[in-house]
Amino acid sequence: MFGHKVPDTDAVCSALARAWDLNQQGFPAQAYRLGELNKETNYVLRSLGCAPPPLLTAPLVPGESLVAIVDTNNPEELPEHVESVQIHSIVDHHKLAGLSTAAPVEVDIRPLCSAGSIVYARMKAAHTVPTSTVAGLLLSCILSDSLEFRSPTTTAVDKVYAGELAALSGIDVPAHAAAMFAAKADISDLSAAAVVLSDSKVYTVGGLRLRVSVHETTDAAAALVRLADFQAAMAQIRTQESPALDHVLFFVVDILKEEATFVGTDALGARLVERAFGVPVRADATALLPGVLSRKKQIMPALERAFQQP
Amino acid sequence: MFGHKVPDTDAVCSALARAWDLNQQGFPAQAYRLGELNKETNYVLRSLGCAPPPLLTAPLVPGESLVAIVDTNNPEELPEHVESVQIHSIVDHHKLAGLSTAAPVEVDIRPLCSAGSIVYARMKAAHTVPTSTVAGLLLSCILSDSLEFRSPTTTAVDKVYAGELAALSGIDVPAHAAAMFAAKADISDLSAAAVVLSDSKVYTVGGLRLRVSVHETTDAAAALVRLADFQAAMAQIRTQESPALDHVLFFVVDILKEEATFVGTDALGARLVERAFGVPVRADATALLPGVLSRKKQIMPALERAFQQP
Repeated sequence: MFGHKVPDTDAVCSALARAWDLNQQGFPAQAYRLGELNKETNYVLRSLGCAPPPLLTAPLVPGESLVAIVDTNNPEELPEHVESVQIHSIVDHHKLAGLSTAAPVEVDIRPLCSAGSIVYARMKAAHTVPTSTVAGLLLSCILSDSLEFRSPTTTAVDKVYAGELAALSGIDVPAHAAAMFAAKADISDLSAAAVVLSDSKVYTVGGLRLRVSVHETTDAAAALVRLADFQAAMAQIRTQESPALDHVLFFVVDILKEEATFVGTDALGARLVERAFGVPVRADATALLPGVLSRKKQIMPALERAFQQP
Repeated sequence: MFGHKVPDTDAVCSALARAWDLNQQGFPAQAYRLGELNKETNYVLRSLGCAPPPLLTAPLVPGESLVAIVDTNNPEELPEHVESVQIHSIVDHHKLAGLSTAAPVEVDIRPLCSAGSIVYARMKAAHTVPTSTVAGLLLSCILSDSLEFRSPTTTAVDKVYAGELAALSGIDVPAHAAAMFAAKADISDLSAAAVVLSDSKVYTVGGLRLRVSVHETTDAAAALVRLADFQAAMAQIRTQESPALDHVLFFVVDILKEEATFVGTDALGARLVERAFGVPVRADATALLPGVLSRKKQIMPALERAFQQP
């Protein structure tokens, strides 16, 4: 039972909640993480008194491993050999990403804001009532991925579920969300490269391999003091990563102001963002993108449209 | 709203039932078929007084079309451009086949015997009671794909659903299934090529493109009178199809005796089947496979294992 590589709050907390649900159903399940926890997730687990899931270090073994997946269906974000092992189920909220399986697998993908929303929907359908801790985990999934309902990925269903989960967990939503976002905004002890890579995905768009990174924060101005450091780290990531990247694009998302600042390193990246968002890129290779909060719903569709233009 | 190309009873009847369900939910939907109906499906629709769905002839248009899919998630079995149009949902019971979508899509795949079983499970979850006609369509999906519960793809859930749907539709299950299978067994007016292609899928196994055809019948001996005709048609299909096929393998499944007869055309196909099933292929290029009823659960896994052996 695990979520994607470079885990975020939704991947970790929905895996913990789904493992609890499967155990309730009499199906023994153990949650794992596929990488280091970020500060927001650490705060959530600490505040709920949950131990972090262990790191999965053993390789998957065809014919032996039986895995349940949450919060991704993308083979690039999953351990090696995942297509050859037995998959119990996939519970996710992302687009289909080309996974093939050897046998029919239970797949439950819904266009809700978080994987946690779907894990909770399945509990509701089975008349399973989560404990207050599990409800707190699921609520944290929704608050994290929806940026406390600000992101355009938020649906009416997510808001209803968050209300129910707040009641079940006894959590004060604005206070909990504020503490989560404050934990994530504190990057004082992180290297510039660690910030750029902490919420980062690789996409192939128009034949180019793009690493698209996001830093969601309650104080973009404070983060952007380190602009030159970020740009140096991005240039290094681009040249050192294998397989080779064509661009690293970085977006510092201000949750409270509901805007993103694009951070680029070169003229090509700048032209791409100018075409995608119709805004000028400034001399320091940054651009302000009002209203932009979501990589999935806003940044990636804009980049893909930009590539389709002649 | 449509199922796969070369439609069978499950693809057609689950599309009709799902379209009814979506309309009940206030979502206007029209069922289509992507090819000619087989005789079993014709019998089912006639016996229930249902008009056949129209043939989809217009191409899918990115930015305009909105499609709902049942009984497949395989891009090869779907119309061109399906990956670029808006997909409402996918309700299916097959393995994941590598589809990519532009946006998050509702996907409900469960390892049940038929797509109709899952369409019905969704109605139950929403407390929607199908009409007797819709219940008859869904029951026919289960009986067709499970060969009246004989196929190893049948689950306990499918049997429970079939019992409920029989009660809702007032259908006598053994009599209805017998009439369905008798309709399918009557191939007197079909060319040998039409029989070979009526329930046929193309797979890439071990780097080879295989067309694997099945004819499910209550009287295999009567069908196998035309053995030489089938073999001539298979050889012609193999050489004429584009992209080129490496083999055409044909299995005449006797539903009542619960066995399959493999029909081959050449020594290579024979070696493959000997290795896959551990049985000798006879001088007429046929082999008896006791207990084999399911392409999905038995024939394809055996062929794939045969290719993995050194």
